[in-house]
Amino acid sequence: MNLHELGIADAAQAIRDKRISATELAQDCLARIKQREAEVGAWQFVDPDSVLEQARKLDAQPGQGPLHGVPIGVKDIINTADMPTEYGSPIYRAHRPRMDAAPVALLRRAGALIVGKTVTTEFAFFKPGKTCNPRNPKHTPGGSSSGSAAAVADRMVPGALGSQTAGSLIRPASYCGVVGYKPTYGDFDLTGVKGLAHSLDTLGTLTRSVTDAALLRAALLELAPEPEEVSSAWAPSIGLCRTASWLDASSETRDGLEKLALSLSLMGARVGEVSLPDSFSRFPSLQKTLMAYEVARSLAYEYDTAREQLSGSIRELIEFGTDIDRNDYVHALCSAEQGARQIEPVLEQWDILLAPSAPGAAPAGVDATGDPIFSRMWMLLGLPTISLPAFNSANGLPIGVQLVGARFGDERLLRAARWVERMLSQNKAVGA
Amino acid sequence: MNLHELGIADAAQAIRDKRISATELAQDCLARIKQREAEVGAWQFVDPDSVLEQARKLDAQPGQGPLHGVPIGVKDIINTADMPTEYGSPIYRAHRPRMDAAPVALLRRAGALIVGKTVTTEFAFFKPGKTCNPRNPKHTPGGSSSGSAAAVADRMVPGALGSQTAGSLIRPASYCGVVGYKPTYGDFDLTGVKGLAHSLDTLGTLTRSVTDAALLRAALLELAPEPEEVSSAWAPSIGLCRTASWLDASSETRDGLEKLALSLSLMGARVGEVSLPDSFSRFPSLQKTLMAYEVARSLAYEYDTAREQLSGSIRELIEFGTDIDRNDYVHALCSAEQGARQIEPVLEQWDILLAPSAPGAAPAGVDATGDPIFSRMWMLLGLPTISLPAFNSANGLPIGVQLVGARFGDERLLRAARWVERMLSQNKAVGA
Repeated sequence: MNLHELGIADAAQAIRDKRISATELAQDCLARIKQREAEVGAWQFVDPDSVLEQARKLDAQPGQGPLHGVPIGVKDIINTADMPTEYGSPIYRAHRPRMDAAPVALLRRAGALIVGKTVTTEFAFFKPGKTCNPRNPKHTPGGSSSGSAAAVADRMVPGALGSQTAGSLIRPASYCGVVGYKPTYGDFDLTGVKGLAHSLDTLGTLTRSVTDAALLRAALLELAPEPEEVSSAWAPSIGLCRTASWLDASSETRDGLEKLALSLSLMGARVGEVSLPDSFSRFPSLQKTLMAYEVARSLAYEYDTAREQLSGSIRELIEFGTDIDRNDYVHALCSAEQGARQIEPVLEQWDILLAPSAPGAAPAGVDATGDPIFSRMWMLLGLPTISLPAFNSANGLPIGVQLVGARFGDERLLRAARWVERMLSQNKAVGA
Repeated sequence: MNLHELGIADAAQAIRDKRISATELAQDCLARIKQREAEVGAWQFVDPDSVLEQARKLDAQPGQGPLHGVPIGVKDIINTADMPTEYGSPIYRAHRPRMDAAPVALLRRAGALIVGKTVTTEFAFFKPGKTCNPRNPKHTPGGSSSGSAAAVADRMVPGALGSQTAGSLIRPASYCGVVGYKPTYGDFDLTGVKGLAHSLDTLGTLTRSVTDAALLRAALLELAPEPEEVSSAWAPSIGLCRTASWLDASSETRDGLEKLALSLSLMGARVGEVSLPDSFSRFPSLQKTLMAYEVARSLAYEYDTAREQLSGSIRELIEFGTDIDRNDYVHALCSAEQGARQIEPVLEQWDILLAPSAPGAAPAGVDATGDPIFSRMWMLLGLPTISLPAFNSANGLPIGVQLVGARFGDERLLRAARWVERMLSQNKAVGA
């Protein structure tokens, strides 16, 4: 196995055991980036010399942090003091912040090696950057965390930071075939992350396993890494939740999800159907209201001073948001809170809900990043969700499934996700 | 009357009516700053030439915005593209952000003239800057929005932006004798404002009247300015709320507040006593938990890269926050939400609650900024509050009273505050 294929946990362990050095690992990741970047376009900025210098420093230090020497990519809406941060916009060409964002500082504190800045759509909204889907470069990687998902999927780095306001972690994770984790709203500090819509913006991770997502979470919250689960006999309870957007999913996605629910039940999970109240069908649209209203204020400076450098799509969003009546905005906020309370008992009954991550596999074309429809409701409710690669579409592209947990129930969600991940790999092993 | 003594509404009207120019007003404010700044120390940065240049540009434009030509100060934790932004810390000496914070952009959109950056304590926590109380320079102006409160109190500018995480708007407003307004949590966009504790941080205003606070609010939310209230016969219902911290207030403050409640009742308000559930007595301490936990993450970069440039008080806060168990943090968040729901029916019964703004008048000495005890609970609950100058202490320093409104009930709060303000001025007129 090439070193650049190691996951976070394995790489950190190998460095701790002195089987490999941070420098060797960084060299291998840089070589992979060099080999593949022209096709994938995951990176907004990488400086190999400074990466190797960081790696040598880490090798020279006695490694204490749980991520010591592990290479991580950082979405380019997240400030870094030693690299440019351009927010996916020509307005911020060559912008170099004075400080690292808090999550970057926390990863460095844990020993992580920040490899570079990954491509984001414009201000983490819709206008794509240069990134292609590494599984098929004629298809979108999804967005807005496009480069983070593609870099992790293509084994350039074992993990990356992304963020989500509508569906910017879950969708690219699903399209690229990696694990996307969005914690409970508010969990990861956003100091130094360019804001889009403050009631929704959430930092998250892209990795190739649930264990690796949990390791990044532990570093970002300064928790002791979670112990592996105890009993292999344990299985979660799973509520299949089609959501009101079910018919927006392809038949392939719908069939796949239903078959998965069945096979997880055969593997020992308690599985049942969950129907949400009718009022929840309005939530994707309320999420749009909330987002547009807030974006219209958060990007006031850019709109007033550099409008001609904004894309048409984000200008439209801002103008739509400016016209939203404040009462409608407050109504959306209050409905979100009411919904969060209504769904609490459901998530006492089930460890996780099982839902689509995206309508289907990554659409062809790189001029758009796909539809966040299957994330909007969960974002409005502030619930933690995770997307796991689950099956392949007829054209060979990955399709993810989304697991949804209770608010502040991230540890339970991750435990259940590890179980589902193991079942999926057994499924694949037997060719199911 | 000198122009620098005009409030926001009057100044904007005078400019609209072409009775004065933005340049004349700016000149008068700059002259006042020049005359008084050595004693008051309200400003971190003012460049008179660039202020006059802005003013001339505003005079040359046909004035459309509701704040056209009105000079405003901006707390130095709020980014400005054309001025340094130092966050009250030597770590950020001469830091010049690439962009204006969203609230600055929104004020400029409304036509405001940004005069300069006002002194903040270190990262809006406790370590004071150079500002003195303009009413008596041997006393603290309060903090963290020290410069904003002092500049407005001293008639250097008619209004300023501040922010509050514990008591950073209400306390300096009370100590300096101005109106401090903290809206419902989440209302004013914080993009480009240095974060301290994201579940609490709230932008707000310092002005010399409630009408002026409402004008700044309208600009920051892009609302049409509110019409003046219709009926002069209307009076609000007022719940006197002593809070569990009542005995932390001086007898002067307690007596003053009780007398005020009585006289507002004689003036036509329905006044009653409000007792909060016993569990609310823990809220100030839960607010500290929340704040310290979040600060320990939000300042991770500064702590790791420039610890020796942090004050002892903020290092202690960070270290205290690092040791807080995550379950205690989540418990504090959930208690806050529960409390917010419990207080809802109380604020359906009363237009406003009446409570102390601070334990008493500004303490002597400028090495500390006083105690935010009377704001912590309202911050935890996310409620909008406003401090009005109400009476004077025996040593002649002002003491404010705090009016608390329902969540998203800012317009009702401001309406009631205008009524209380009118009654207070009648009280003073008759020497009561």
